Amino acid sequence: MSQQPKAVVLFSGGLDSSTCLAIARAEGFAPHALAVRYGQRHAFELEAAKRVAAALGVPLRTVDIDLRAIGGSALTADIEVPKDGPLGAGAGIPVTYVPARNTVMLSLALGFAEVLQARDIYIGVNSLDYSGYPDCRPQFVEAFERLANLATAAATDGGQRLRIHAPLQTLTKAEIIARGTALGVPYALTHSCYDPAPDGGACGHCDSCRLRAQGFAAANVPDPTVYAR
Amino acid sequence: MSQQPKAVVLFSGGLDSSTCLAIARAEGFAPHALAVRYGQRHAFELEAAKRVAAALGVPLRTVDIDLRAIGGSALTADIEVPKDGPLGAGAGIPVTYVPARNTVMLSLALGFAEVLQARDIYIGVNSLDYSGYPDCRPQFVEAFERLANLATAAATDGGQRLRIHAPLQTLTKAEIIARGTALGVPYALTHSCYDPAPDGGACGHCDSCRLRAQGFAAANVPDPTVYAR
Repeated sequence: MSQQPKAVVLFSGGLDSSTCLAIARAEGFAPHALAVRYGQRHAFELEAAKRVAAALGVPLRTVDIDLRAIGGSALTADIEVPKDGPLGAGAGIPVTYVPARNTVMLSLALGFAEVLQARDIYIGVNSLDYSGYPDCRPQFVEAFERLANLATAAATDGGQRLRIHAPLQTLTKAEIIARGTALGVPYALTHSCYDPAPDGGACGHCDSCRLRAQGFAAANVPDPTVYAR
Repeated sequence: MSQQPKAVVLFSGGLDSSTCLAIARAEGFAPHALAVRYGQRHAFELEAAKRVAAALGVPLRTVDIDLRAIGGSALTADIEVPKDGPLGAGAGIPVTYVPARNTVMLSLALGFAEVLQARDIYIGVNSLDYSGYPDCRPQFVEAFERLANLATAAATDGGQRLRIHAPLQTLTKAEIIARGTALGVPYALTHSCYDPAPDGGACGHCDSCRLRAQGFAAANVPDPTVYAR
């Protein structure tokens, strides 16, 4: 049996969280992937999560939550995903923003960490290529770590502190891809598109597709993404 | 249409959160109740939530989340609910503790508040009769408020601060019941038992039943609870 400490890794099957999973392992943890199904309009992301976790030999747990009940985002409701508009923070908060998404996801990771008796949580947030989401900022991650250390049973038993790791925080998409390639992340199995074709092919035009394609180009790594035909 | 500001009220149909709903209204808000179904073993709590919300004329939204997927509590897994043991903080963290429960619930309330454009969230946590849960302490609520003001779109647009209200924080169960009775809370419709009979009757022996019964006695208010026969 492994003597490595466990870590919960929030994991979607996308490029960033797949890299995060590989980094957690490279940093000496036994990663436990946690996928959160939050009423996504398509199931390709979860299928990718299963494929990538299996390829990396990491256990995957899935929690279902129906965020459509509270509405408010193109990723969970019937609002059109924007295509080919301006990218990045200058464009403001996009309609693909899911209300309180990372707060909800980290809360679930916190509960899972408590059950596993893990003291480390990884999240693949990124503040450079971050598309303007407020809950991807370093201040947010720090505030959640502070909360986590007040919220849980571990907080009252004098146990070791919980740590929230955001190893992609200051990396560009190209740096993420270079790091993941060095760690053997099977990017061909990952899924990033906000609006895939019925066969799972990427649209190539949503923010997520464009940031991904630019990242592979900038990293000088062949792009294995399968685009919709 | 009402000119009152909206508030999200976390609401289970129990004694505390029903009182909280009435307090939010008395404090000048248009309350929107949010019930979170977290894989409870029984549905009586949600039925009570519907009855109480209808009686108070408050809209109720329900979010489903399957916390059984992460395990770890007698309220969501197959662990026996303790009966007639020591009550209160001195007894340590009980097995009925749901990992990161209030963190998850407040995260969902935060998302719903953002969708409603509400800046106020009510939660019925209580640190006197609190049964030893770490996420009922005032430090926890303050840390969540800080997080909320970093997490959301409102945080980046210079908007009004989000406030987390915990009006029951320092009240005894008797004080909560006295306040709610003055506000017309229909306690006969509320449900508190962790382990109800098949007909919905309260067991009278779990921590929640005993704290409730002691509260009515101490408040000198007739106890309308329907116990299992």
